[in-house]
Order: sequence, then structure tokens, then C-alpha cells
Amino acid sequence: MNRREFNSVLIGSVAASLAPLRLEAQTAPRVNSTRLNGHLTALSEFGKNPQGGVSRVAYSDADRAGRAAVMDWMRAARLDPKVDVAGNIMATRAGSTPALKPILFGSHIDSVPEGGNFDGDVGSLAAIEIAQTFAEHGVVTRHPLQIVIWQNEEGGLYGSRAVSGQLTADELKNVSTSGKTIADGIRFIGGDPSRIGEARRTKGDIAAYFELHIEQGGLLEAAKLNIGIVEGIVGIQQWEATVSGFANHAGTTPMDQRHDALLSAARFVDMVNRVVRSVPGRQVGTVGRIQAFPGAPNVIPGQVTCTLELRDLDDAKIARLYAQIRDEATKISAQNQTTFAFRSLHVNTAAPSDPAMRAIIGDGAKALGLTSQVMPSGAGHDAQAMAQIGPMGMIFIPSIGGISHSPKEFSRPDDIANGANVLLATVLAADQKLS
Amino acid sequence: MNRREFNSVLIGSVAASLAPLRLEAQTAPRVNSTRLNGHLTALSEFGKNPQGGVSRVAYSDADRAGRAAVMDWMRAARLDPKVDVAGNIMATRAGSTPALKPILFGSHIDSVPEGGNFDGDVGSLAAIEIAQTFAEHGVVTRHPLQIVIWQNEEGGLYGSRAVSGQLTADELKNVSTSGKTIADGIRFIGGDPSRIGEARRTKGDIAAYFELHIEQGGLLEAAKLNIGIVEGIVGIQQWEATVSGFANHAGTTPMDQRHDALLSAARFVDMVNRVVRSVPGRQVGTVGRIQAFPGAPNVIPGQVTCTLELRDLDDAKIARLYAQIRDEATKISAQNQTTFAFRSLHVNTAAPSDPAMRAIIGDGAKALGLTSQVMPSGAGHDAQAMAQIGPMGMIFIPSIGGISHSPKEFSRPDDIANGANVLLATVLAADQKLS
Repeated sequence: MNRREFNSVLIGSVAASLAPLRLEAQTAPRVNSTRLNGHLTALSEFGKNPQGGVSRVAYSDADRAGRAAVMDWMRAARLDPKVDVAGNIMATRAGSTPALKPILFGSHIDSVPEGGNFDGDVGSLAAIEIAQTFAEHGVVTRHPLQIVIWQNEEGGLYGSRAVSGQLTADELKNVSTSGKTIADGIRFIGGDPSRIGEARRTKGDIAAYFELHIEQGGLLEAAKLNIGIVEGIVGIQQWEATVSGFANHAGTTPMDQRHDALLSAARFVDMVNRVVRSVPGRQVGTVGRIQAFPGAPNVIPGQVTCTLELRDLDDAKIARLYAQIRDEATKISAQNQTTFAFRSLHVNTAAPSDPAMRAIIGDGAKALGLTSQVMPSGAGHDAQAMAQIGPMGMIFIPSIGGISHSPKEFSRPDDIANGANVLLATVLAADQKLS
Repeated sequence: MNRREFNSVLIGSVAASLAPLRLEAQTAPRVNSTRLNGHLTALSEFGKNPQGGVSRVAYSDADRAGRAAVMDWMRAARLDPKVDVAGNIMATRAGSTPALKPILFGSHIDSVPEGGNFDGDVGSLAAIEIAQTFAEHGVVTRHPLQIVIWQNEEGGLYGSRAVSGQLTADELKNVSTSGKTIADGIRFIGGDPSRIGEARRTKGDIAAYFELHIEQGGLLEAAKLNIGIVEGIVGIQQWEATVSGFANHAGTTPMDQRHDALLSAARFVDMVNRVVRSVPGRQVGTVGRIQAFPGAPNVIPGQVTCTLELRDLDDAKIARLYAQIRDEATKISAQNQTTFAFRSLHVNTAAPSDPAMRAIIGDGAKALGLTSQVMPSGAGHDAQAMAQIGPMGMIFIPSIGGISHSPKEFSRPDDIANGANVLLATVLAADQKLS
């Protein structure tokens, strides 16, 4: 969705509530930026690497220690954190209208190995900071608020998918990066995998879900914008392509008698790039892994395997691009006496955010004097699981250089405070708007 | 060299001896095809694999047992085989003019792992068969004849390079496919690596060297020809190319902001094929190995390493192709914000055969009523080491389907007998011609 479309949605669906919402954002309390950024620095001590950044993978000692610190900060924010059966940390702040469903917001604090200090942490600590700000200013919302720290986002959204009902029992046997199975990991952080079904919520159980996160890309910084309003979380499909030719002696086989699987694979990689860029939009396509067999300098490769990944907000567009790639691969086969076979590795359907929630976020940013842009999230987030059970809205702040999953990951303290204030305004506006 | 050029060389340099040589080939004794092919079958028992073919890598028990069998067959051919300090099996058949230098011929019996029953074996057993035929027919040559079974051809021409003086002391420490070092391997088969220098011969120590071998390519079979007259053994150069870009998140990095090392590497592979095919000739170029880092489906590759191999009879042509490939790689870099670096892995200079020896072979084939063609050898052979110290000639017979280094390797019994008879005629003609 572009800016023009966004404005029409805004005018069409939430025009009635625009005036009070703007007022709310302008007059709402602001978070304590020093305290919020101080908590970020303090959290980066848990799993800190000598070369910078953290390795705080889910279910590690560092993860458990970090969670304990976060729960202490929640208590300081006058919250009463509990670990649910799926291992998520949840704290509810009561609302004035008990019949209303809760508004959830939060993120995660687990990291990838050799990760950074901002991915997940910003949204988690901002959620706690907002609760503390509300407590200090005596703000009482209509809806109950639930501050959530999801467990094991990086390993595959385990905590949030348990709540949205997408996690299967079989997945509890998967081995996580920590070395523990998911089941053992959940036990390690205080959950109870044998009762994991009790964590599940269904459509209508939540009023809305919001998440603040670093962009993990370079769009906001390049455009010098403060806030990204997430249009949706992209669908992801991965395949393994196997190219079969005929391995032969690189010295004795003339160029015109070869069935060179790597030559076909090379043309495939180039073609994927061309096809993905041939249509307008923000879709991306990547070949990230490749191997040639037998893999000797003096043997013509007889077989090559490589991966193909396509991402877009529109699953139908992914399907169209894939169909075109398959067609073009057939043409490459014919040029070069090789064959292509494709096997699906992974499918994540696209998770659009709620147009009304996007409007609320955009309005909140504007009221705070911040520039913003509607944009897709190319990365996966817990918000995509929550989109299955309620209206979802997601706020991005700039990542310097677009770098993420790296010790070099960085977001400026002012951008972090801006993001937290937009989230605060969004929660208040949603509290007014939603029934 | 094409047929027309070959004929002029023939007419120019050996015209005087054409008439008697032709007579010699026509009236010379013929090898016993049944015995020769029987020995091939018998040799294929040593290191036989259940799925066909042999694994008789140099210095293995199978290699040693095969060598013992070959030496028995040499004795049956009234030869007295000895193992030289380098581990080669040598047997001399006295000539009538003791002052003349020896004419050498032979090949090797070691194989690659999971190899076939013809590569090396054909030329080795044909050499013994010729000695036996001479013995049975009371043929006495002017020159002494030396039948040679080189050790460890497949590992890198170790036996023949010891004789031609190209083997360095350091290479004795290399670990061979058998797991033994070259030094230990040479000891295992009866040589003495501490005295390896004594195996060395210099230019003028041999009258000529001839080798019969399977083509290991598909040219002769495709052209329905009996005999290949090797124009020379190609020069081989190998490099490792490293393509450097920037690894980044495959979801959050827009297509136009990527420094995708694999995209550049893919264009490189395609370009190498185009450049090598852009000029006339039989040069070949291969990218056989490729790896992308970090190598995950959801990460844009930041670095790729791949090999480049170029082969041609003309080392200067290899240098020109490489220069063009480097230039084109620079253009690819510029398209895609990546860089290329090249590191030499291996250099084998081209080894032309002797024009007079080619003429003798061609004449021998013609006298036997066989069709032939002058052609390069795309594969390396012991003959390339021998070309350093004397006139070299090499004879190819068809490989069915061009398959080699495989259990499917096959040459027809009639083609094997034809090749042996051409070698026999060649040895007799060279004995007449050479001083």
C-alpha cells in the first residue's frame, strides 16, 4: 500500500475518530528516554560478546538471566509479570472496562548467535517503559493492557505461535540453537510444555497487538524518515532447486558436448535476479546457498543444488514470480541439456497489518511531529503470529546502515524514544477507538 | 594441427623414410588380441569393485598385487622387469646396436578411486604384448626397447616426473590417495625415495617415448575413427576466484541495495563459458567448484569462492583467455558492487608431441588400414613428462561415450588390438628412422 492508498483508508475507516486521537497523541505523556536507553544498555550485558553485541539465544543461561532482569524492571513499572505455559512473560495492567479484551504489546529479548543489542530488545523495553510511564502519570485505559515478552522469536516464533495456535506438538521436539529441545527449553525458562495448549488464544480473544521493532533494513535511514508503519509482514517461500547434468572430464569433454549443471545453475541465479526485478514492487528473491557435485576443479559439475527464496506482502505475487522462474528455468534446461527439479523447503504466508491500526500509528507519528512511511517488513516477527488472532499494527524505527543480526546493529537513542512514544500514543488511541 | 598440416609435415620431414616404414607396418607381426584383452580382464580383478571397475589407487594393496601380476606377464614375455628407485617397473629388451639410446613405451596401472579398467591398463598391457610378440617372432630392433609401467600417474605423474627430473624433494611428503606419503608409497612398491635422484634421465638419454592410451573423450567415437594421433598434451592452469560482496538479510535488503557475491559469481560462470567459446579451437574452460558464504537460504551471500580451469595446447592462448576473463570479471564487479580476486592453484605447461613421431604414427595407422585424426589430449599423461627429455608420440583409441574415470569406462577389444598394432608398427618405424 502506498501513501495515497493509506490516506484514503484513513479517511474512509477512521475519519470519525481522527480529531480526538490527534489530541491524545499531542497531550499524552512521553516516555523517559534516558531510562529506556539505560535499560537497553543494561540488557546488553546479558550474553555480551567480547567483540560487541550479544549471543543470547533462547533457553541459554544468558537468556534466562536476561528474562529475570526484565521481570525485575516490569515489577519496577508496577507490573506483576508471569510466565505462561509456553514460556512467554506476560504482565497485565487492568483497564477501566473489564469486559473489554486486552490490547497486547511487546516483543522478544532472545537473540541470534553473535547478534546485536536492538533486535527485539527495543520493543520489549519500550513496552515496559510505556507501562511505567502510564503508572507514573496515573493513566488508566479502558482496555486491559498486556505487556508481552515472547520466548524464542529468533528460532521460529515459538512463543507467539503457541499463543496463536500455529505451533504443532511435533515442533516441541525440534532442537533449538541452545542445544536444548524446544520442550526442554520451555521448561528451562519456567513454562510447561505438557500444558502448552492452554496458552492458546483464538480470534476475538485480543483487542489488538502492537509491536515496536528496529527496521533491520536501510529504507528509513536512506529516506531520512523517523517511523515506518508496517503494511504487513512478507510471505516467505523457500525451495531447493536441483540441476542435473552429466559430470565429465574437464579436459577431454569439448565445450559443445557438455551437460554442465553449474552453467545452468549460474544462468538460473542471474535469471532469478532479473525476474524478481522485472516487475514493480518491493518483492525480493535470493539464492543464498549453492553446491556443485562432485566439486573438483577438473570435473564438469554433474549436479548442483541451490536454494531459492522469494518474499512479498502478496502471496499471489510470490506464486506468479515462482511460476515465471520455473518457466525460465525450463528454457535454460533446453539451452544446456540439463534438467531442473524444485522441492519446497518452507512456506510462511504473508501477514498484513490492520488498515485501521496503520492509520492510528500514522496519526500518532504525525501528532508527534515525526515523518513516516508505510512499508513492508521483509523480516519475520511475532506480530505475524498475532495477526492470526486480532488486528495487528507494527512500528519500525531506523537501523543505521540497515545492519541487523550483527554486533554492528545500531539504532539511535532518539529514534528509540520516538518509536516508544509512537507506540504509547498508538496504544492510547487504539484504547479509545476499539471496542 | 589439422590433417592438411599433418600431411605437409609428413612430406617435409620424413618423406625419405616413408616407403620402408609403410612396408614395415604392413609386414610387421600383429599382436595377439585374445591374449592382450585377456590380460586386461585379468588385471581388472586387482582392486575390483562390486559395482564394476576398480579402485586400484597407487600404493594400495591392490596396486602392489596388480604390479606383481604385471611383472609375471613381463617375465612370460621374456622380459626381466626391475623396479627403479622411483618405483617404476622397467624392463629392457636388448637392441642390435648397443650405442643407441633406448626407445621407451608403456603407461600406468594405478587408477583413480572408483575408476575403470582401461585408463593406463591398455597402454601398459599393450607394451608387454608387443614385447611378447617380438619375442615370438624373433624381432630384433636396432635400439634397445624399454617397457615402462609408471607408478602413481593418477596422483600427479609421480613416477614419470621423477625420471624427467620435475619431481621436487618436497613432493615426497605429499599424502597420496592411499593415505601413505609419496615416500612411504614408493618404499611400499619397492623403490627407494632416499635415492630418487638416481632415476633421473636428461635430454638425449632416450631415443623416443611412445604411449598408447584410451582417449577419455568422445571425439574418436563421434567421428567413427580408429586412431587418435596426439598433437600434444594440453597446458592446464587452475585458479581460485574469490568474489567479495556484503552479506545481508535476504528479507530486508532491497534488490537495488545488494552487494550479492553469488550474483556476480553466477555471471562469472556464464561469462567464462562465453569467453572460452568465443574463439575457434579446442580450448576448454571449467568452473567445477563453488561455495557461497555464509550459505543460508535467507542470507544474501557476502562471499563466494569458485575455481577456474583453462586448458589448451597453446599456453599463450590460455594466457590470452585468462586476461580476457579478468577484464570481464572487472566489468561484472562494477555492475554489482562486488570485487574479484584470483589466486593461482596449479600450472601445467603444454607438452607438444614430436611432429616426426606423429608422422610415424599416422603412417603406421594408414598402413594397417585404420582411420586416424590428429587431436589434442585434454587429459594429462606420463607422456608429458617424457616430452621434456625426448621426442614423444602418443596414440589414442576410442572411449565409448567419452566416459572415463568411471566404472562405465569402456574400449572395444578390436580398438585395443588396433591401438597395440599401431604402437608396434610405430616402435619398429621409429627404430628404423631414429639414430
